[in-house]
Amino acid sequence: MPEYKAPLRDMKFVMQELLDCDTHYQKLGFEDASIDMIDAILSEASKFTEQVIAPINQIGDQQGCQWHDGNVTTPDGFKEAYQQYVEGGWPTLSQKVEFGGQGLPHSINTAIGEFMSAANHSFAMYPGLSHGALATVEAHGSDMQKSLFMPKLVEGTWTGTMCLTEPHCGTDLGMLRTKAELNDDGSYNITGTKIFISAGEHDLSDNILHIVIARTPNAPEGSKGISLFIVPKFNVKDDGTKADRNAVSCGSIEHKMGINANSTCVINFDCAKGYMIGTENKGLNCMFTFMNAARLGVANEGTSAAEASFQGALAYAKDRLQMRSISGVKNPKGPADPIIVHPDVRRMLLTQKSIAEGGRALVGYLAQLVDIDHAENDPAIKADANAKLALLTPIAKAFLTETGLECTSHGVQVFGGHGFIKEWGMEQLMRDTKISCIYEGTTGIQALDLLARKILGSQG
Amino acid sequence: MPEYKAPLRDMKFVMQELLDCDTHYQKLGFEDASIDMIDAILSEASKFTEQVIAPINQIGDQQGCQWHDGNVTTPDGFKEAYQQYVEGGWPTLSQKVEFGGQGLPHSINTAIGEFMSAANHSFAMYPGLSHGALATVEAHGSDMQKSLFMPKLVEGTWTGTMCLTEPHCGTDLGMLRTKAELNDDGSYNITGTKIFISAGEHDLSDNILHIVIARTPNAPEGSKGISLFIVPKFNVKDDGTKADRNAVSCGSIEHKMGINANSTCVINFDCAKGYMIGTENKGLNCMFTFMNAARLGVANEGTSAAEASFQGALAYAKDRLQMRSISGVKNPKGPADPIIVHPDVRRMLLTQKSIAEGGRALVGYLAQLVDIDHAENDPAIKADANAKLALLTPIAKAFLTETGLECTSHGVQVFGGHGFIKEWGMEQLMRDTKISCIYEGTTGIQALDLLARKILGSQG
Repeated sequence: MPEYKAPLRDMKFVMQELLDCDTHYQKLGFEDASIDMIDAILSEASKFTEQVIAPINQIGDQQGCQWHDGNVTTPDGFKEAYQQYVEGGWPTLSQKVEFGGQGLPHSINTAIGEFMSAANHSFAMYPGLSHGALATVEAHGSDMQKSLFMPKLVEGTWTGTMCLTEPHCGTDLGMLRTKAELNDDGSYNITGTKIFISAGEHDLSDNILHIVIARTPNAPEGSKGISLFIVPKFNVKDDGTKADRNAVSCGSIEHKMGINANSTCVINFDCAKGYMIGTENKGLNCMFTFMNAARLGVANEGTSAAEASFQGALAYAKDRLQMRSISGVKNPKGPADPIIVHPDVRRMLLTQKSIAEGGRALVGYLAQLVDIDHAENDPAIKADANAKLALLTPIAKAFLTETGLECTSHGVQVFGGHGFIKEWGMEQLMRDTKISCIYEGTTGIQALDLLARKILGSQG
Repeated sequence: MPEYKAPLRDMKFVMQELLDCDTHYQKLGFEDASIDMIDAILSEASKFTEQVIAPINQIGDQQGCQWHDGNVTTPDGFKEAYQQYVEGGWPTLSQKVEFGGQGLPHSINTAIGEFMSAANHSFAMYPGLSHGALATVEAHGSDMQKSLFMPKLVEGTWTGTMCLTEPHCGTDLGMLRTKAELNDDGSYNITGTKIFISAGEHDLSDNILHIVIARTPNAPEGSKGISLFIVPKFNVKDDGTKADRNAVSCGSIEHKMGINANSTCVINFDCAKGYMIGTENKGLNCMFTFMNAARLGVANEGTSAAEASFQGALAYAKDRLQMRSISGVKNPKGPADPIIVHPDVRRMLLTQKSIAEGGRALVGYLAQLVDIDHAENDPAIKADANAKLALLTPIAKAFLTETGLECTSHGVQVFGGHGFIKEWGMEQLMRDTKISCIYEGTTGIQALDLLARKILGSQG
């Protein structure tokens, strides 16, 4: 398994020198986000990712998640690592102070997200999904919903999911069948089956809050009849504590190409109690308000994959002796030269390095646009940032996930036959990364989003 | 799991119409290779690959090979399928009549090879490796060696391997350490460890003949001091029957990204009895005489992967209903149009189809050049065919394996999230195919071969 080292120097270069985050944060009023504070956070994040979650990446792949009788056990070490993640306050970093967060900018979290995914793609997805649920409740929930659900989600002791896909519909959510029927008390009974629910059931948190799209009885057909609900695994009392189990169950988990340590669940809602978020029939619109941020998170996984694979390939290329350099012997004391001297190996390493560095800069820039969306008061500046973010997000998502996959393939290739062997960890990076080209909209869907919604939709 | 159908019509088009195999075979004196005979063989091969080996492809991946105490068990059904392969006379097809073969041209075997790899990459490798051993003994073995080893190899009741790689050397075979010490009776004691030996140990055949490269005590350093040996798992009596066990053992098998049903072995030679093939210190040259044919076999795997993935993706794209066509509703009675109407899905399917068809034509053409090398009497024509084959083989191997991998990635992508789930079989194709970019010389090595040996070496 390649040893992961968080690229601290490169990250600081991008944030502080290339993107001048100091000026950016001060302008937006993030007074706590000083250079010293960022250095300290990145340094702690590098320790956490290198020492806590990178070491359980390979065993996570080997063991995978286990389903038994509706419960899901994560691989050895995941529960303890998640506990440390919560105790370290990591989930609270860029959340609002009023819900228990530290109020730091989103872009700092994005930087840490790169380290996390590079160290352990499967692990990083658990907090990633919580973030999706959190953003939904924060943006569209009622005050009551926020006070009931936000603090535990921010704290990380409860986690979240996004329940969109059904067996017959993924991209085309207008076809969904899950039903929501109004109860006398204003809650809804949710009935239906969702598939491919990442982190849908696991043993890391005390409760799981599912954000579910469903259809009310007289809803219009297609995507104009979709409403959004929050459905907790355990019902929640008025004081925000856990009550009895809701009628939500995990029917099975999928056996996948990669991200084996993240549970991909079939979730059955059987008259489960849920609460509408936002306005009836406007569910899909609600979700699209933070789709850019979610897709940016996946773009970041492409950078992570390129970086992790580069680190492994670079170390091997310096160590492995094979053939002599075409420009003369470089390692006269050894039986052969290290393979890093060979042009094709250099080509692959430099491709990986440039995607990692370029990806980090692009994602860093886009994350600053998210900061502006969150914290800027001038509506014109905010609108401009959002327009740029909307245009560039599908490009970043498609480009970085496809090139990230290519980089992990190069990583296998640099290792030759050893790259194909599980032990070395290079093939796991390739298997784990393929999902990034698929979820949150496949590469083809990003192209459609760019062209139809972002260019033709606004007439350029 | 996508259901594999051998592309009979496409194969006949390439062989009979595009490459006019009738004229080609008659010119070379293959009188039995009539159009009727080829049709009958291809038709039987399609039944065998569709009904016998395709159905065990997925279980092969799930179970993998199991190592216990030096023995290797292949997955359920492999032993029976291999027995049917032998009973059907498939190994003998293009082998010489004098050793029990049917004397048909190599290019017919290549066509069947495409079907076999597409149906079950792991299974197809067992006979593939035997073919390497067979070609070595046939080209460079003594008459005695041929009479002892060829008939059983041709029959398929014994299988073969190629033992080249050692832990510290793969590409750079000049660094090999395995020793060969002469015994009084003219045999050699072989001592050393080989890794990544495909089909190195298994339960499909009665005996395994290892073709081993090793170094005699006073051999020159580097690639000029490599000799070739045949080392049987069970010693062979003078009458060609099996004797006692030789000091060859399988230390372990690798856990890999794919081709899980083909055993990838560490093979230990501990003063094992071996017999020199060809001239001392000329081992590497001997091996390169049929390297083009072996690499062509791997190029063929790229075509197979593209074809198998295309078949799965095409069926799914016709069946899966999602969104409406941009040029108007195509399936008014259904809730959505089949995804084959969407331009990006078509792009992926057409890429797969063109690589499969183009690859089939290119490999078919090169296989005819191999036929000419085997059977042509005019030395000028033969030399011309060999020059073309030498030039085009690294291109075919690199191009078809890299694009084959890309095609399997498209196949996963057409399936969306379902492509990432093992059950559908699309991700297995991607994992299995990655090895083709690595073994028999990585893509980078093909580039070196093309440029340094085939272009600069002959001054163009």
